[in-house]
Amino acid sequence: MGLRFEVGAASEAGGRRGSLYLPHGVVQTPVFMPVGTAATVKAVPQETLEQIGADGAGAEMILANTYHLTLRPGHELIRRMGGVHRFMSWRRPMLTDSGGFQVFSLAKLRKVTEDGVEFRSHLDGDKHFFSPEHSMEVQIALGADVMMAFDECVETPATRERTCDSMSLTHAWAARSKEYFETHKDEVPWAEEFGGSSQALFGIVQGGMYPDLRRESAERMVEMDFDGYAIGGLAVGEPPEVTREMIARTLEILPRDRPRYVMGVGYPDQIAEYARMGVDMMDCVLPTRAARHGLLFRRAEPGERQTVEDAIGEEETGIVRSGESWTGNINANPSAIRMNIKRVEYAEDQRPIDPACDCPVCRRYTRAYLRHLFMAREPLGATLNSIHNLAFYLDIMERVRGELAGNSFCQSTNLY
Amino acid sequence: MGLRFEVGAASEAGGRRGSLYLPHGVVQTPVFMPVGTAATVKAVPQETLEQIGADGAGAEMILANTYHLTLRPGHELIRRMGGVHRFMSWRRPMLTDSGGFQVFSLAKLRKVTEDGVEFRSHLDGDKHFFSPEHSMEVQIALGADVMMAFDECVETPATRERTCDSMSLTHAWAARSKEYFETHKDEVPWAEEFGGSSQALFGIVQGGMYPDLRRESAERMVEMDFDGYAIGGLAVGEPPEVTREMIARTLEILPRDRPRYVMGVGYPDQIAEYARMGVDMMDCVLPTRAARHGLLFRRAEPGERQTVEDAIGEEETGIVRSGESWTGNINANPSAIRMNIKRVEYAEDQRPIDPACDCPVCRRYTRAYLRHLFMAREPLGATLNSIHNLAFYLDIMERVRGELAGNSFCQSTNLY
Repeated sequence: MGLRFEVGAASEAGGRRGSLYLPHGVVQTPVFMPVGTAATVKAVPQETLEQIGADGAGAEMILANTYHLTLRPGHELIRRMGGVHRFMSWRRPMLTDSGGFQVFSLAKLRKVTEDGVEFRSHLDGDKHFFSPEHSMEVQIALGADVMMAFDECVETPATRERTCDSMSLTHAWAARSKEYFETHKDEVPWAEEFGGSSQALFGIVQGGMYPDLRRESAERMVEMDFDGYAIGGLAVGEPPEVTREMIARTLEILPRDRPRYVMGVGYPDQIAEYARMGVDMMDCVLPTRAARHGLLFRRAEPGERQTVEDAIGEEETGIVRSGESWTGNINANPSAIRMNIKRVEYAEDQRPIDPACDCPVCRRYTRAYLRHLFMAREPLGATLNSIHNLAFYLDIMERVRGELAGNSFCQSTNLY
Repeated sequence: MGLRFEVGAASEAGGRRGSLYLPHGVVQTPVFMPVGTAATVKAVPQETLEQIGADGAGAEMILANTYHLTLRPGHELIRRMGGVHRFMSWRRPMLTDSGGFQVFSLAKLRKVTEDGVEFRSHLDGDKHFFSPEHSMEVQIALGADVMMAFDECVETPATRERTCDSMSLTHAWAARSKEYFETHKDEVPWAEEFGGSSQALFGIVQGGMYPDLRRESAERMVEMDFDGYAIGGLAVGEPPEVTREMIARTLEILPRDRPRYVMGVGYPDQIAEYARMGVDMMDCVLPTRAARHGLLFRRAEPGERQTVEDAIGEEETGIVRSGESWTGNINANPSAIRMNIKRVEYAEDQRPIDPACDCPVCRRYTRAYLRHLFMAREPLGATLNSIHNLAFYLDIMERVRGELAGNSFCQSTNLY
């Protein structure tokens, strides 16, 4: 058994407060997972990650990318080092993605067959092959607490026919992923250390922007009986209303007693919204990538609107994905405001990024200093900005968990 | 009065254990000061700097560069922010250099007259002018506890005539620096906050590689009666024996009751050696710059020699200054070994950098992980490598202070 999931209080809208028991610890859900692509959350030391966020509880679970780690330093090396937890000295729960999304977004010269994907590394052009079985083999070597079935991601927009074919491939690959996992899960590097416990495997729902395909994909995944279910292929350029709609339609199908994970989202208001809809897990590079580009999040003051000047940096720096524009992210009543720290108006601003934030950066450093670090391209700027943005995201989830815990609509405890 | 210096135990060789009382705190000497060029010790958060080194005492004093800060963000901005301590949130003692060394090593199209130096910024080509009076004005605006008289640095090698002329200019500039400082020192941004205390001003001894000029320069500086004395223009490409000789000849002249500071040195064995000779303060970019290039220091095992493979990275990465070569730095019996972390032999090495080191990096991370971060160009690599190398330097000074404190050759307390 790779996980146990307890669902506590739930809201009428479907949001629920839960606890996810994994070999490396317990995760309070809904949870936001910082992304540690190459076995490091970029520019942030592990000891800092353990301490940021509400009550200094730190990030309870982080993600690492299978594609990146298999290319460098190689999953066999990480297996010999005892798995990714020991390799990077992170003792809390982790999740690895399937490699699918990166193969389709980063790698060159992809050739997809029913068997798998042949591609060339974006690092050195070397040829590699990923199949469901290979993705499982790699993820077992890495040894994260949660691993993902291998999936295909379609380009956006995609025709219904193309989306349907791709979804069918994902379903076939999910079945093969599960089969390989079941017969090899005792090969995880920490199998002995954690006597008898194993990794968990999640299936990924695809189906593009077609609600009926999403439903069909969710039904097929549920039939295969995974430990948890992810909703993939979202936040790839579609309008936010479509993302929300696809999530809502899929959640209707997914069983309430399993963790539900939306991959690669989102802005602060979005992660809060999805958590209130019943999503238990999310991850996104946005807080850390934005931080490295000088975009910082802070709480909005009552009635405050997002200024274009503060938001526009996102397009400049390419952190929004193709198809999105910064205007699309300007919400009429945002709870979070984006600051472009390079703006001259911050040059002598002695306030912290967010006066209501209790993170180590807001407790110590001014906007003026952070602007200076950014303008001087000092590496400390990326570190401090990332710490704040991550703390901001963790704080949002802590507040949503508080809201949900106070809910009396549905007090139930389901054990899985 | 800008400082008080108490000299405690001293050794026969001239080394002494002291305490330097400055407006922002007390510094135990001999001290190594990490370099925070642009008001940040590159890639290391201030809260980490406060905790590394023996007993978690942290760096007691750091340096910032006048030249860099006046170009960006500008000394007037820093004055308005309350001085460099408040600007960067560093509450402990600081020192600023005069800007002289950077004007001569980084700036373009320099034109030196008796009045000062006209030059173009290495950042944007803008024209600037530094005179002794301007360097003082800038350093008072920055408000470090210790500031340096403006000096000229000669190229190496330089003829006796050229060295002599340059030294005379440095002496004239030192007198003008002192005069400006005495009449403007109450303008420091924290004058009121620290009621009545002011900055300290050190003179800089020059004289190139000519022992008699070094002596003459030291005598002239002592006549001018500075709060402390620096030995400048060393470690610019000359052999280590010459550096040592110049320091020894100069220390003979400098008064025993004032702090003595050698600028811009050195390797671990060198800073220990100079401290044992009677140098009280040193600074160098070497630990942090080497760290960013993957060069890490560790304690040598008994009889261990430096391998060429581990040292050669220094030349590759240009961290040795012109005229030096890595072979010149290979000591027959080094107490510190340099590791080139990118070497493949570290790829699966599960040991910490230095098993005898108690720094946060050695307590948590393996060589294998640090090599991975370096090879993947992950920013965390620069941070962790810098933390370790700085802790290594601070530990060396703590050990030398311990040696000196145990000395009974000369127990005296001089108050200045």
